[in-house]
This record gives sequence, C-alpha cells and structure tokens, in this order.
Amino acid sequence: MGQAVIGVDLGGTNLRTALVSPAGDILAKQKEASLASEGHQKVIARLLKNITQQREKAKELGLDVTAVGVGAPGVILSGDGIVVTSPNFPDWNNLPLRQELEKALSLPVFIENDANTAALGEQWRGAARDVGSMIFLTLGTGVGGGIVYEGRIWGGAHGMAGEVGHMTLVPDGRKCGCGNKGCLEMYASSRGIVMSYLDAVPPGAADGASSITSADIYRAASEGEPLAVRVMQDMGRYLGIGIANLINILNPAMVVIGGGVRDAWRLFIEATRQEVRQRAFSYPAERTQIVPSVLGDDAGMVGAAAVALQKRR
Amino acid sequence: MGQAVIGVDLGGTNLRTALVSPAGDILAKQKEASLASEGHQKVIARLLKNITQQREKAKELGLDVTAVGVGAPGVILSGDGIVVTSPNFPDWNNLPLRQELEKALSLPVFIENDANTAALGEQWRGAARDVGSMIFLTLGTGVGGGIVYEGRIWGGAHGMAGEVGHMTLVPDGRKCGCGNKGCLEMYASSRGIVMSYLDAVPPGAADGASSITSADIYRAASEGEPLAVRVMQDMGRYLGIGIANLINILNPAMVVIGGGVRDAWRLFIEATRQEVRQRAFSYPAERTQIVPSVLGDDAGMVGAAAVALQKRR
Repeated sequence: MGQAVIGVDLGGTNLRTALVSPAGDILAKQKEASLASEGHQKVIARLLKNITQQREKAKELGLDVTAVGVGAPGVILSGDGIVVTSPNFPDWNNLPLRQELEKALSLPVFIENDANTAALGEQWRGAARDVGSMIFLTLGTGVGGGIVYEGRIWGGAHGMAGEVGHMTLVPDGRKCGCGNKGCLEMYASSRGIVMSYLDAVPPGAADGASSITSADIYRAASEGEPLAVRVMQDMGRYLGIGIANLINILNPAMVVIGGGVRDAWRLFIEATRQEVRQRAFSYPAERTQIVPSVLGDDAGMVGAAAVALQKRR
Repeated sequence: MGQAVIGVDLGGTNLRTALVSPAGDILAKQKEASLASEGHQKVIARLLKNITQQREKAKELGLDVTAVGVGAPGVILSGDGIVVTSPNFPDWNNLPLRQELEKALSLPVFIENDANTAALGEQWRGAARDVGSMIFLTLGTGVGGGIVYEGRIWGGAHGMAGEVGHMTLVPDGRKCGCGNKGCLEMYASSRGIVMSYLDAVPPGAADGASSITSADIYRAASEGEPLAVRVMQDMGRYLGIGIANLINILNPAMVVIGGGVRDAWRLFIEATRQEVRQRAFSYPAERTQIVPSVLGDDAGMVGAAAVALQKRR
C-alpha cells in the first residue's frame, strides 16, 4: 500500500487540509472557515473532521496515512506539540493540541508554527526548491517568518525561532502588540502600511482616510498618487533594513516573500533591494535572491506535510 | 600514534597557535605579534613558522598532527579557504590562504572567520559547553559574532553568517566602516562607548576628553561618575536591543559575550537584561542565558581546532 501524509494549515480565518504524497504533491485538499471564536473544543472537532475526511480520501486512493502535520499561529512548543498562546485563538492557553489530536486519530501528529510550515513548504516545493537554506517572510496583517536550514525548520532552543517580524527596526518606534516598540511588523505589514499612510496624510486632507485599506493604498500608488507611492517606498525601505539584517546575521541563499502584501511587489521591491545593497555586506547581499513566494495558500499545507514526513519515525 | 590538530587565531595584533587534543585540551601554545603591516607574505611565513613549531612539539609528544584550523578576521569564503577582504590586513584581497598553507604544510587546512572560531571554542569547551546552539558576541574595537547550531558553525550560504555586529539598530545612526549606518558595532564596541561619551560630554567640560579611552570610561563609571554611568547603561541598552532581535530571530539557548568590553560586565549587563525582557518574546527571553565568555584568548585557537577536527575527513 502506498503512503501519504496529511498537512493542515490552521489559520485565524481558514482551516486548510491536504493529502500530500511523499514527494510533496497535493493529492486532495479542502478548506473551511476556522471559526476561531467558537472556542477550542469546536475548532479541534473541526480539525478532526477535516483530517478524517482526507484520511478517507486516502483510503479511496489506496494510500495509507502515516502522520499528520499541523501549522498553527502563535507561540508553539513544537517539541511537545503545545500551543502556548495564539493571538487568533484567544482561549488557547498551553493547549496540548498534539496530544488531543493523537488520542482521537491514533496517528503521529506534529505541531509547528504556521510561518515555519509555510517556509518549509516554499523551500520543499516552492520558490526555494533549489536551495537548502532560506528565510521566508509572510507580510500580511502582521509579519511572520520562518528559517529553513539544510531542508529543515530552524526551531532554535524551544521551537520559537523565526519571529523576524519582531526584530526592532526603530528603537522608539510604533508600539507593537508583542510588547516591543518599532518592530518590522509595524512598518512592513498591511496594517503598518495603513498606519504609515494615516501618519503621513496632511491634517484636513484626510477626508475618508480613516477607513482606508492597504488595497486602497496599493491602488493609489499604482496610479501614481504621490503620498501612496512614498508610503510604499518607505515600507520597502523598512523591509530592506530587516532583510539586510537577516543577510548579515544568517547569510541565507534566498529570501522568499509571501502574504497579502506580496501583491504590491512592484510598489516596494526596488526600495527594498536598494536598502539591502546600502546596508548589508556586499558579497552576500549581491548573492541573496529576494523573490516572491509561489505556492500561495498551499505553502502551509505542503510544509506541514513535510514536517510530518521528516518527524515521523 | 595519538592524534592532534593545530588551531590558529590570527588577529590584527596577535598570532596565537595551539596544539589541541581531539577532546579540546590545549597541549601547548605560543603567541607572537602578527605584524599585519609587513604584508601578507611575511604574515604567511610567520604563520607557517608557528604551525611548524607546534608540529614539532606534537612530534616530541608522540602525536601526529592531522589538520590545521585557522581563524582570521574579515570576509572569509570558508568553503574555498579564501580571505576576500580583511580590515586588519589591508593587502589581503581574495588571498587563497588555505591553498598557500596546504602547499607548504602538506596538511589539510581550514579557514574560518575568527568570530566563528571563537564561538565554536566557547560552545565546545567554554561557557556554552552544555548547550548545542548558541550565539557568541565579541565586543572589542568592533563587534564580531558567531552562531553555533548543534555543535557546528552556522556558515550560511557563503560561510559569511554571524555578522551580528552589523545589524542596524538605528536606521539613521552613526556611519559604520562597513558602509551601513547605525550598526550595533557603533554602539556596543569599545569604540562606540568612546563615541557615546564624547557625544554626551558638555562642550567646554571636555578637557582632555578627546584622548579618553574605553578603560577610562569603565573606571569612571565604576567610581559613579554620572556621565560615564549613563554611557555604559546606554551601551547596555543597545546591546539588549541586538540580543532581543537575536532571541526573536534565532531562539538560541545561550548568548555568550566576550571581547574586551566584557571586562565592564557589571556596568552594562543589567541594562542589557532589562532591554531584552522589554523587547523579546517572553517565553524564549526568560530562558535564554546571557553569560560572559570563559575561555578568553584561548577561545579562537580551541574553536579553530574544532573546525579542523570537524572538517577533516
């Protein structure tokens, strides 16, 4: 009987579940709303239902599911499979998610931070498939990150490495939800872009500005509206400082950028590259590819499947 | 016949050479001035002389030298053993140091950045000997760094990782020799401390201030001189921002601090720890040990020996 694994991307909004071959091909997938606000018991029941459906799909295909990988947002103790806290799931506190799922499924389950699984997905089958070591930045409402070294997630001492969005860029900068000030996340996320725009808009000229979205700003910048253009270039520069730091610290072969802000790629990337050239050591900076992600919403499921394949004994 | 390796720490000032057992014990060592200004040919001749003397010492002890590791300052392509540039050796440009030494010695030679070898030395036999993964910061005239992951130097894609001293802390800050602005090195090195003092001293009150050294500032701070105390606390805070970034990005088990500034430990470490608590994610921050180095000047030689042992086939 052939084998397969199940990769789950549990986001604050969507729960995505895929049946994945040992080579990383998605054989089947499904998606439904996470409904995080319904509390952890209902979310776990929903997880189990989706995983079981994919397991039945595997049976139809004549495949045996050998393990499940789950990418979840928040602070995860990946070794123990515990969700310490998760901003998207307010009632998840030291939740032994791995244990709960293993008990119900009688299958090995592995839990990872969702930015780490997305990173591994892009390294295994996406933009970085030809390099072993890379850094993934997901620029969404916040800024997540994952580091892959020689084909494996760099977890650090407690599985919590990769929080590159919470690198300080401006010591006395904007207050971040993490408790720090001036984090990359406060400048290079969609929320940061809106804040920069509102900070820059002249008083009195702010008609309707308070309800502006990042998509509105991308559109205005595309149309050449000077303030929006400047905001996007500033965002690009902050991102460039962060990437320059990562190049000097880690000398990755590639930096892959995903998340919703990637859609505004051409509005910020030149400013980013220029800042990297000005700040990072030139030898590694000239050789570090900075590229957009290619797997999109599939990255997390594919990477969670990779975790399951790597960790299963 | 027993085996040993030779570890060399080639600094801008001193050339240190040791005969090291496979367990990491220093069996013999010697030191002389590097005399970098005499040019690369004389420095290489001096390297060869010191290595040969330690090889003879090995013979006396009935030991066979199987490899040589060299830590050298600057931009090093460790895979190829080439010194791309080195601030301390101005005439070293793309110097194939490994090839030159191997030709003369008929021994395998491995070249690494000197902060990386010091990091590995502290991890193998020093402050971090009980943890596999750590970050070493050497606060001297500049700020060097090395990352050790599961007992090996994290070299990155080109062997150039670990340049944590050139992380941007202040985007429009002091101009650094690397071409960037606001690098950690410009605030947490002995040179940075002197600059901060001179920036802070009131005009007119600066009698003799222009010739002040970092040691003078440590002494004044120890005696409670308010300006010196403040300068050392500011330095500690900047170091804390840098370490908080490293904790969020890499989640190391330990951060080890060496270099001459370590002598002023109690003048800055509380400010550093407070800044780390305020800025880094609390779960890893509470668990990351921040400790002084213990091997001192031996760290580089011991780590260079470890490189030789690890890379020799």
